Amino acid sequence: MAVIVMKFGGTSVADLDRIRNVARHVKREVDAGNQVAVVVSAMAGTTNQLVEWVNQASPDYDPREYDAVVASGEQITSGLLAIVLQSMGVKARSWQGWQMPIETNDNHGAARVSSIDGTLMRERIAGGQAAIVTGFQGIEPTRKRIATLGRGGSDTSAVAIAVALKADICDIYTDVDGVYTTDPRIVAKAQRLSKISYEEMLEMASLGSKVLSTRSVELAMVYGIRLRVLSSFADHETTPPTNIDNLEDIGTIVCDEDDIVEQQVVSGIAYAKDEAKVTLRNIADKPGVAASIFGPLADANVNVDMIVQNLSGDGRLTDMTFTVMASELERALSVLDGAKAEIGAFEISSSADVVKVSVIGVGMRSHAGVASKMFQALAEKSINILAITTSEIKISVLIDADYAELAIRTLHSLFGLDAE
Amino acid sequence: MAVIVMKFGGTSVADLDRIRNVARHVKREVDAGNQVAVVVSAMAGTTNQLVEWVNQASPDYDPREYDAVVASGEQITSGLLAIVLQSMGVKARSWQGWQMPIETNDNHGAARVSSIDGTLMRERIAGGQAAIVTGFQGIEPTRKRIATLGRGGSDTSAVAIAVALKADICDIYTDVDGVYTTDPRIVAKAQRLSKISYEEMLEMASLGSKVLSTRSVELAMVYGIRLRVLSSFADHETTPPTNIDNLEDIGTIVCDEDDIVEQQVVSGIAYAKDEAKVTLRNIADKPGVAASIFGPLADANVNVDMIVQNLSGDGRLTDMTFTVMASELERALSVLDGAKAEIGAFEISSSADVVKVSVIGVGMRSHAGVASKMFQALAEKSINILAITTSEIKISVLIDADYAELAIRTLHSLFGLDAE
Repeated sequence: MAVIVMKFGGTSVADLDRIRNVARHVKREVDAGNQVAVVVSAMAGTTNQLVEWVNQASPDYDPREYDAVVASGEQITSGLLAIVLQSMGVKARSWQGWQMPIETNDNHGAARVSSIDGTLMRERIAGGQAAIVTGFQGIEPTRKRIATLGRGGSDTSAVAIAVALKADICDIYTDVDGVYTTDPRIVAKAQRLSKISYEEMLEMASLGSKVLSTRSVELAMVYGIRLRVLSSFADHETTPPTNIDNLEDIGTIVCDEDDIVEQQVVSGIAYAKDEAKVTLRNIADKPGVAASIFGPLADANVNVDMIVQNLSGDGRLTDMTFTVMASELERALSVLDGAKAEIGAFEISSSADVVKVSVIGVGMRSHAGVASKMFQALAEKSINILAITTSEIKISVLIDADYAELAIRTLHSLFGLDAE
Repeated sequence: MAVIVMKFGGTSVADLDRIRNVARHVKREVDAGNQVAVVVSAMAGTTNQLVEWVNQASPDYDPREYDAVVASGEQITSGLLAIVLQSMGVKARSWQGWQMPIETNDNHGAARVSSIDGTLMRERIAGGQAAIVTGFQGIEPTRKRIATLGRGGSDTSAVAIAVALKADICDIYTDVDGVYTTDPRIVAKAQRLSKISYEEMLEMASLGSKVLSTRSVELAMVYGIRLRVLSSFADHETTPPTNIDNLEDIGTIVCDEDDIVEQQVVSGIAYAKDEAKVTLRNIADKPGVAASIFGPLADANVNVDMIVQNLSGDGRLTDMTFTVMASELERALSVLDGAKAEIGAFEISSSADVVKVSVIGVGMRSHAGVASKMFQALAEKSINILAITTSEIKISVLIDADYAELAIRTLHSLFGLDAE
């Protein structure tokens, strides 16, 4: 008998028919004798409506009140799912974050889980009662106010609860049937991965894959919780999660690198359209100029991702290109305008028509030459690389948005990821 | 400086414009130096939507889960109002029932408030922070589950919080500007009452007036909390509630009988369309027959209101007429069918086309002849009385629904309630 955490996102609980479908998945696992906790998101659209109301109330809102309003969405879903399960003869009750309690820090709107007391819930699920938990939220213990974990927070709730319950697996049910080598809407030959390592999944999530939130993968990695991504819209048999090889038939398992026998050099290709490029031309090439640019940006909480410095024609001047989130571009430009005196004379240009394409794979650690192979393939297609960043297990390039699909297809094929 | 509880119903907070309007009422009282707690209902329509979802999930729902779902409506309003107030420069925070906490018994769906700890809220409002409280809900302390107080529960929340805060007045803002001598949609000459006693208001509420919930008036009476009913859609000045005579200009004050100088014999006329009449003909006129009818109904939780027994032509047989809530009529008929053997042979007829019209006034205690005056006036209009019940301060008659408006207008005029 295993302890299972099942998480269902907003599209999986969008209306009562879908909630009934979710209930069938839960009933299957309970009937198989498993101890089950279920984490639910708000019904699709609900959170957006609530956020819109908050913004209409005041764009400059108190995040504690934002949390009080927005947390109500999951409350509704968890109660409805508990009722549907009871009507199917499954013992169930809803749990709100503050009832468990799931304690968080006081960073309202993007809080971090600090501790979870799973004692009472463990007792209940051991007694055969399914626990239906509101995702995305907990309670800040000092002031006893509701705190939400930010977008994607229900994944994080699910993993954190899996840790607290010492669960054998955390199943993330979503509207796709697993993690793919790349976005199947762009590459028809994309393949579902049966396994992927935590490190790779973490890079995939940070570099644009929307399947899992970064924080949830991080937490799963730290605590060694096996994640599985699978579709809520497909029927499947229950699979005892105690032996990892039982799990390969459906979905994608996110697990330790050592549990993956056949490791590819490159496991997947991710892309992100939400970055913007800023170029400063003809700035003085002298010590401290980088600090005069990036210091004020950091002070204004603008995250800078990729940075490239070029020598310009004149030896005493240089060009600097970097990327920020497209949503922060306006703010970045006004910060730079304010810091003009310190930076010295410069011309500035910016563009949001760029895409970051990344190849990811733990196999790169032992295989040299991935980068040069990648750059050469892109060059053969006349794709200009605007910036590059690398880590031990990924290489990212910034290119013009027009070339994104071409670059992704080229690399997918180059690294042997195309389905037969 | 006074302590004021302000309560706003669903139509008063139906959208963000109306929530801003509510915020202006609150700001006026805070700016005048009052200590303010505000109780809010869910946005109009929200609770109905949530109840509908619960019924779709399963008509045979767990009331604890019903409460978890339905309580979310007030949570949304309280957060939004706090944000709007902050944007107007008023210090404010939202409080959910479990945060205060408002403790209730475990009768989920129609729970009763058992105790409220107002210590922390008193500190906060004394510091100038408006407390925005979710109406209609509290927490059952043993299992720490959310419990709702049933329809009209936000009025009850407001009075209970007024008790806990030792408030000087509890202002109930609604979509009408006070309590009227009768429904102005029926009698154009209906007048706003500037004051009404708790006892009369209690009868009005039980007998069909929808302005205040019965339970809230009861609670206000027991704890001596002055209530005022006033319109959220009208502007008015702040009025220090410490002297009751300051309050007469707007709305209706519900207060102790002794605070009302000029007492009318009849203060108001109420009517209720939600009763149904059941008549059993030709039952045996023998001891125990009433018990054989009303015993099974009581066992099935069917509330019987008015009862009339007539001797039929034959001396050994009798007719029995009584009323039940129209919503319970089907159940009552099937209970009676099941008890046929005990009751003995009878013919049964029923009708929901009846209205109960009531005249209410504490002045009846000292004025005899109100009933006979009333019956004679109805007889003159050829209105047949089907049943009668009386108490010390009210007389109710059951009549055919077709005559309801005529009866109400006749009585309104008869007892001198028509406006000049």
